[in-house]
Amino acid sequence: MQALGRQARQASARLSAASAAEKNAVLRGIAVRLRASGEALAADNARDLERAQAAGLAAPMVDRLRLTPKILETLAQGCEQLAAMPDIIGEIRGMTQQPSGIRVGQMRVPLGVFGMVYESRPNVTIEAASLSIKSGNACILRGGSEAIDSNRALARLVRAALADAGLPEDAVQLVQTTDREAVGQLIAMPQYVDVIIPRGGKGLIERISRDARVPVIKHLDGNCHVYVDDPCDVAMAVTIADNAKTQKYSPCNASEGLLVARAVAADFLPAIGAVYAAKGVEMRCDPEAAAILARVGGADVRPATEQDWSEEYLAPIISIKMVAGLDEAIAHINRYSSHHTDAIVTRDHVHAQRFLREVDSASVMVNASTRFADGFEYGLGAEIGISTDKFHARGPVGIEGLTSLKWVVLGQGEVRT
Amino acid sequence: MQALGRQARQASARLSAASAAEKNAVLRGIAVRLRASGEALAADNARDLERAQAAGLAAPMVDRLRLTPKILETLAQGCEQLAAMPDIIGEIRGMTQQPSGIRVGQMRVPLGVFGMVYESRPNVTIEAASLSIKSGNACILRGGSEAIDSNRALARLVRAALADAGLPEDAVQLVQTTDREAVGQLIAMPQYVDVIIPRGGKGLIERISRDARVPVIKHLDGNCHVYVDDPCDVAMAVTIADNAKTQKYSPCNASEGLLVARAVAADFLPAIGAVYAAKGVEMRCDPEAAAILARVGGADVRPATEQDWSEEYLAPIISIKMVAGLDEAIAHINRYSSHHTDAIVTRDHVHAQRFLREVDSASVMVNASTRFADGFEYGLGAEIGISTDKFHARGPVGIEGLTSLKWVVLGQGEVRT
Repeated sequence: MQALGRQARQASARLSAASAAEKNAVLRGIAVRLRASGEALAADNARDLERAQAAGLAAPMVDRLRLTPKILETLAQGCEQLAAMPDIIGEIRGMTQQPSGIRVGQMRVPLGVFGMVYESRPNVTIEAASLSIKSGNACILRGGSEAIDSNRALARLVRAALADAGLPEDAVQLVQTTDREAVGQLIAMPQYVDVIIPRGGKGLIERISRDARVPVIKHLDGNCHVYVDDPCDVAMAVTIADNAKTQKYSPCNASEGLLVARAVAADFLPAIGAVYAAKGVEMRCDPEAAAILARVGGADVRPATEQDWSEEYLAPIISIKMVAGLDEAIAHINRYSSHHTDAIVTRDHVHAQRFLREVDSASVMVNASTRFADGFEYGLGAEIGISTDKFHARGPVGIEGLTSLKWVVLGQGEVRT
Repeated sequence: MQALGRQARQASARLSAASAAEKNAVLRGIAVRLRASGEALAADNARDLERAQAAGLAAPMVDRLRLTPKILETLAQGCEQLAAMPDIIGEIRGMTQQPSGIRVGQMRVPLGVFGMVYESRPNVTIEAASLSIKSGNACILRGGSEAIDSNRALARLVRAALADAGLPEDAVQLVQTTDREAVGQLIAMPQYVDVIIPRGGKGLIERISRDARVPVIKHLDGNCHVYVDDPCDVAMAVTIADNAKTQKYSPCNASEGLLVARAVAADFLPAIGAVYAAKGVEMRCDPEAAAILARVGGADVRPATEQDWSEEYLAPIISIKMVAGLDEAIAHINRYSSHHTDAIVTRDHVHAQRFLREVDSASVMVNASTRFADGFEYGLGAEIGISTDKFHARGPVGIEGLTSLKWVVLGQGEVRT
């Protein structure tokens, strides 16, 4: 692992100075090779699938390992889209002259080397490698043992594309062993690795955060809320509360809690209750909301416990609570939400401004579904992950999250006096 | 310590929503109280000084504890300058409309709570408290035991100014115990403290970095370089190499290494050698540089060892090495420098651009003294510290370093499809 680290550090010096044209040539090269290597990749992927089936993995888990032609095409297009994006490395911002005469600005530069630790899906190998190349960083990838044959084949392909473009192959390295100890070493080499990005279950992420000796860009819980304010457009509130919960149940930006201002509850709750009832969404309610929702035909209404306010269901379940108004809604969210994404539906400008300012979450929204909290929807062009931390990067993280700003000083012989 | 943490977290919610006028009133209130409390503060300070003298502390160490009328006035003016600065909290940048119709931007918000761990000088209590208030963060301050009486008096003064302005006193809390265990607890409460800023000796900073369970904004070594390129204005190179080394020996941005392109060495080295000889600067040289410098009258020329290239002398000593040109200079700096601040003196535009891009340091400079690497010289208006990390904040850190960007989404009822 030390050798991988040394090689990554060395490759990163070359990659950080690579031109946009060189980096984009690698990305287009990866796309070409992904399209040309379908059969060979299928053979490697088949070994992972057979091993998974032999080990008795559940069908959905086996499916996550599968590299279909469609997935390969999506990955190829992703690389081409990255190649088409502007290169933010080397840009200089805010160059201003100081009283001493020097001009001072900040240049965007790569962080250096990142380590990615992930489970199952082999597509992450291509996604991480392409982000790494575009951002001028080297990376060390550590995928799951269940996808090791696919990951090896994909890493070989990326390295060949790097070599073709005259860039060092070691800009992208795959950890060849799959023992857990390798992860422990990877996350504890501050001299070689500048940041760790884990992707996977909560257990993996908590373990890495606890043991890492370098910064971690991580995503933990997504307990998101919609607060339906007084006054609001009730029809809009129903549309948003419906979409935020039911458009997809599994994403981290799906809402798990619904807060309703008392003054609009009699209008709003029966309408959203009917929608949730029709879609089979279980409603865990405080007594006041329950009293109204119990009258909705077919509604699955249950009493909420204290635990429900903190729960990330990722399922057709939502907690519902009536509140006096904005203050109580903000207090509830700041206490129970996971500081991921929270939305208000309102017509009141002052309420909207206070919600935006006072709710301490990575994304705060007015009159929009929490499901928009996503790098692509935010126009980042690529998404490394969604950070639930405040330090360095917060919320959806694009390529900027893999960069740093260094100070640039231009003088004409100035000295300190 | 848990209680301090809880109180800080609670106070931070109010402070993060405080208006610029409220925060500036506190800062001006601190200035008024500092000027009015000279005698009372002198009495508290005297107890620290007596204890230090009784304990046999060296005179310079005792001096660092002293709160003179001049220091109090400087602190008061610092608070007034902070009050006069624009408030960056709540500003929204880059609000753009996305294809879905939502508008997305980023709002600057406080990090929440920071912990400051520092030694000796009690003025840090006021500097940290005022930065905390201006940036809308709460803070927990842990000064050294030798200044505990002064720190207590200053913290009381700040808390009174907070209360006067109707803001929670607990926005600024001083740890009342001075045992080491308190630091261990302070740096391991991620639920209450968002970032730790240590100020002090290298031992303290390394210990905190190793044990902290939260991010640390830290400063380690300052092994800075001046590279004298070919072609360059030799007179300018002499002025800069002189200033970078000798204007002050103790700051972290003073240069410790001088690299000289072989083609200009015969012109440049005798000139700078005479300057250093006149100022009693010891020159630790590679054989080529030594051969030229040995002919300078009065020059203290010694052979450099491998260790010298990495050394932070903070003294009238400099290492000097002849290099073939730009490539060797960049390679040497990226290998041996502490990635703090490095400068090139050149007339070559391409060399200047490559140096700026390829030298992996927090500050990179062309034709200016490394001594400019400083928050005030960079126009930040305040300096929390100088970060030698790449993550979050790099180089001189102003108030921005105590803030984070959250995403703001404005919709008109948009949902994901």
